[in-house]
Amino acid sequence: MNPINFTPIGTIHSPFTALEGMPIQPAGAREPIGTVVVDAAYAAGLQDLEGFSHIYLLYCFHRAAPLRLRVVPFLDNCEHGVFATRAPSRPNPIGLSVVELLEIQGNRLRVRGIDVLDGTPLLDIKPYIEAIDRVEESRSGWLASSREEIASKRSDRRFT
Amino acid sequence: MNPINFTPIGTIHSPFTALEGMPIQPAGAREPIGTVVVDAAYAAGLQDLEGFSHIYLLYCFHRAAPLRLRVVPFLDNCEHGVFATRAPSRPNPIGLSVVELLEIQGNRLRVRGIDVLDGTPLLDIKPYIEAIDRVEESRSGWLASSREEIASKRSDRRFT
Repeated sequence: MNPINFTPIGTIHSPFTALEGMPIQPAGAREPIGTVVVDAAYAAGLQDLEGFSHIYLLYCFHRAAPLRLRVVPFLDNCEHGVFATRAPSRPNPIGLSVVELLEIQGNRLRVRGIDVLDGTPLLDIKPYIEAIDRVEESRSGWLASSREEIASKRSDRRFT
Repeated sequence: MNPINFTPIGTIHSPFTALEGMPIQPAGAREPIGTVVVDAAYAAGLQDLEGFSHIYLLYCFHRAAPLRLRVVPFLDNCEHGVFATRAPSRPNPIGLSVVELLEIQGNRLRVRGIDVLDGTPLLDIKPYIEAIDRVEESRSGWLASSREEIASKRSDRRFT
């Protein structure tokens, strides 16, 4: 299949400058505040986003390890297929996080619950829409960790 | 910023062959069954995914209209910034849907609640993890439609 070109639309700034010791998901990052800077050329696309309390950030895992189809994720000791995990070493290293939107000033968004490296290239922002995105009942496979366990977990060097 | 190259990892097949008259979100597509075919080279990455009842599909809006920073989405009569909507005419036309995973056979996934065009290029699959992805309380801005209203809505030609 033909490659598709995407160009980052901005940059995510966070307190995290090393791949080690980071929260591994927004659930583990309730406190950290980040700033999403959208290129000024796209600022008009942010109109009315402030009415949403939560947003999806789509970004590029720009410092991820090369592709591995089977990985041992941070939350387990066994190997799983990479598509059954949120590990960064995917065929297309696109990351997805739901974060709380605190404030928008011009082309800058303050968000809470950031779990990405400082300088991460931003690909897209979408509103989290409860009627569409919230799944009322679901099964989470191998992932038996509670929200609290996930919150206390930090990354190590396995994907560097 | 430098462009990033992504190569589709498979194709999403659905009953929808025209941009008009489609469900506009998985919430509007509870019944339609789709088949996600992952390239055989990546099949090993699907290991243990079947334990998850719901998955995210990330894909390319391959027949979307060119970029518009302000759009009138299907669910409203007013203009909003494209990042405050799920409209396809985004700077990077990446789509995101949560669907129910019914079955995996080799490199083929049967899913329920598909809302994409037949032949859509697949970029990534991620497990939906309740402890990470479910937001307990959220505000959905301009989007006042109920789940039922969204379910009954169908697309028109505005993004073709």
